[in-house]
Amino acid sequence: MAAHRLGNLGFMAANLTDKTQLAMSAKHLCAIKTDQVNKSQTRSKVLSIDEMNPHVKNIEYAVRGPIVIRAGELEKELKQGAKKKFNSILRANIGDCHATGQEPLIFLRQVLALCLYPELMKDPSFPDDAKQRASRFLAACGGNSIGKGFSLNYPFHISYYLDESSNWSLSLDELKRSISEARPHCKPKAICVINPGNPTGQVLTRKNIEDIIKFAHEENLFIMADEVYQHNVYAEGSEFHSFKKVLMEMGAPYNEMELASFMSTSKGYMGECGLRGGYVELVNLDPDVIVQFKKALSAKLCSAVTGQAAMNVIVNPPKPGEPSFELFEKQKNTVLGQLKEKGKMTSDMFNSIDGISCNPVQGAMYAFPKIELPKKAVEAAQAKGLAADAFYCFNLLEETGMCVVPGSGFGQKEGTWHFRTTILPPLEQLGEMLSGIGEFHSKFLDKYS
Amino acid sequence: MAAHRLGNLGFMAANLTDKTQLAMSAKHLCAIKTDQVNKSQTRSKVLSIDEMNPHVKNIEYAVRGPIVIRAGELEKELKQGAKKKFNSILRANIGDCHATGQEPLIFLRQVLALCLYPELMKDPSFPDDAKQRASRFLAACGGNSIGKGFSLNYPFHISYYLDESSNWSLSLDELKRSISEARPHCKPKAICVINPGNPTGQVLTRKNIEDIIKFAHEENLFIMADEVYQHNVYAEGSEFHSFKKVLMEMGAPYNEMELASFMSTSKGYMGECGLRGGYVELVNLDPDVIVQFKKALSAKLCSAVTGQAAMNVIVNPPKPGEPSFELFEKQKNTVLGQLKEKGKMTSDMFNSIDGISCNPVQGAMYAFPKIELPKKAVEAAQAKGLAADAFYCFNLLEETGMCVVPGSGFGQKEGTWHFRTTILPPLEQLGEMLSGIGEFHSKFLDKYS
Repeated sequence: MAAHRLGNLGFMAANLTDKTQLAMSAKHLCAIKTDQVNKSQTRSKVLSIDEMNPHVKNIEYAVRGPIVIRAGELEKELKQGAKKKFNSILRANIGDCHATGQEPLIFLRQVLALCLYPELMKDPSFPDDAKQRASRFLAACGGNSIGKGFSLNYPFHISYYLDESSNWSLSLDELKRSISEARPHCKPKAICVINPGNPTGQVLTRKNIEDIIKFAHEENLFIMADEVYQHNVYAEGSEFHSFKKVLMEMGAPYNEMELASFMSTSKGYMGECGLRGGYVELVNLDPDVIVQFKKALSAKLCSAVTGQAAMNVIVNPPKPGEPSFELFEKQKNTVLGQLKEKGKMTSDMFNSIDGISCNPVQGAMYAFPKIELPKKAVEAAQAKGLAADAFYCFNLLEETGMCVVPGSGFGQKEGTWHFRTTILPPLEQLGEMLSGIGEFHSKFLDKYS
Repeated sequence: MAAHRLGNLGFMAANLTDKTQLAMSAKHLCAIKTDQVNKSQTRSKVLSIDEMNPHVKNIEYAVRGPIVIRAGELEKELKQGAKKKFNSILRANIGDCHATGQEPLIFLRQVLALCLYPELMKDPSFPDDAKQRASRFLAACGGNSIGKGFSLNYPFHISYYLDESSNWSLSLDELKRSISEARPHCKPKAICVINPGNPTGQVLTRKNIEDIIKFAHEENLFIMADEVYQHNVYAEGSEFHSFKKVLMEMGAPYNEMELASFMSTSKGYMGECGLRGGYVELVNLDPDVIVQFKKALSAKLCSAVTGQAAMNVIVNPPKPGEPSFELFEKQKNTVLGQLKEKGKMTSDMFNSIDGISCNPVQGAMYAFPKIELPKKAVEAAQAKGLAADAFYCFNLLEETGMCVVPGSGFGQKEGTWHFRTTILPPLEQLGEMLSGIGEFHSKFLDKYS
């Protein structure tokens, strides 16, 4: 199984065990939405209870096992008016202090509230030491925001290639080539799609998505759709289509296919990477598998409740007429408008540099320009045991202080070289960065020509 | 490898791979402190680089690989006054919006600040919809606090037994029995200690800890000390001793032993389960192992930044003279004082019930009373395929609405039955709960005698 992938698509060739673990280990899982399963299904599931890892099925966790499940049922029955010998459930099973009435530490919560909403620094009712503490934390966070953090997408894949010459489009022939080459080595069970794409910044057309769904149906693959950039669509004519919607609109037999769609507070117009909020929506899963999945999740820690609350706000944004609606919309449109401008500027400026070419940034937050590297530079890199684009990126860093990611870290067609840069720096700084890359590139070519 | 353990101690019999994964998968890891390694060490490490899982060593993650490490070094050099062609590092490698100047969504942050510090509900500058949203979240959280959550301690162990007849004390003979029985089946590499104990609520004496350290030294075991209840010590004469302190004070050869100590914001006087803050302190680890550990952590998501900020407050509480010191101390002492009272009340009331006995709750947040169950009840449980104490707990739930955890979920000496209850409910409610258990127990005995 290759450890890297190209562009925004890759097969999951893991067996069912690995797939389940992968799905469960996604840290931004915090809510599961499940769709009703059509009982008259004609096609067996890709992920059936029989094929699940027996170790998952054997998990028993007393602190949150069947007694706690029964307690939840009893709570529901009481709420529905059932008469019991008691009026409420007393949960003495887990050491959850605040749930049983302990008051939160005021200083701690003040510091956190100040970190999350620094406007409160002006509030005289907050003590100075809480303010100082919060200032210190914020100064240590990138961008003075506690929303800073890290994110990681599915690193174990069999890769296939997108077509750079036609705007990172998806070719069914390439998908077929890749799966045919993989079959002798493993049993591909799922296809992962990141749309809009990372690192290529491409937005799949509806036709692309239909093709992928048909291909997945033919090959009996579970679809895992990373749709965390769904709000980040900039190019004229580009539009986000969710896999679930397309799948449902295609009708039978496609509307019974298994799908997991992922969403996060870290991207979009929110950019709250530090809060760790997200969800996965599971569509058409075997109900027995859902039971095991929920059990396995319940034997793990939940994600931070602040992240869950943030995700809830994003899936239920303020509505017209509500006091926060206008400000919310304004902030959203400002962020997305700026990203659109930055995306266009990025590809335009790259394309104005000799030896660099870049497809339009249709969506997401990245550009993935191709760089032409002279033979001498490739040899110099080899002498240092580096891929040529890694060598280029090291030099860029040392010369200019700019930190980008070599294309070889994502996978790319043999003999081509790329790097990935975000389009996030403020407009002016981004302009300086792009000019700086142009100057560096010209000097680099001079040196190694 | 048994899937359950007893009391607050258990061997880690996992191989090095498992151990590393386990350490890394602890969700509340957010900071690593490492101690200087004595280069003249006479004893080889339990966890050496050669024995590490080669898959961990082979991890490469471009987005945060050597180029990003170099970028960090350059930042340091710039800070120390080094002259470069640039004044700062521009991080265009990851899509971290707030770090590059994007403004957080005001509505979202307002909602979160209100959730964390509901006192702000009175602040007229916060819009009503943000307040309503926060109220709805808080109502859905146990105890109206966003600090509610779940926690899970090391579930894969070879278990051994604590001596209930002498206050859950630790016997070296029992440790030796257990490891001798385990050796033919696996290669024990680590010993896990939870002190103060869960589910037994016991606090280890300094002599106990010294014995465990000597035993671990003799058997060449890595010590993993879960010390998250270090503030929760109530009994007269009981005192918390950290493994690190005891190990260091014992001097050579013990002060060179490998130790990992875990701490969390979820317990103690904080009880912030929902924030997911914590750390592990690594002592005397092989520096090559540390490098791999950091690399593996950097290829994962960090924990929520709110949790990291909370942990920072707890390890640096307000100092005397600072404005928040008195309130902080008052809240801390109130919580711990109430827990002390509740712990005493819990064991006293259990011991006043015929057929129930309970050791004093010296620390942590739990009582683990022993229940005598009549033969007929054991048979009725067997007929339902349940452990007798699980059957008892199901009946307790259905009859009284009280949810506790059967001792069979933790492991207990053959033929004995227990359950674990927290001591967290407010005093009055705890009293009612304990009386309720007494009444239930007497009826249960009548029914099955």
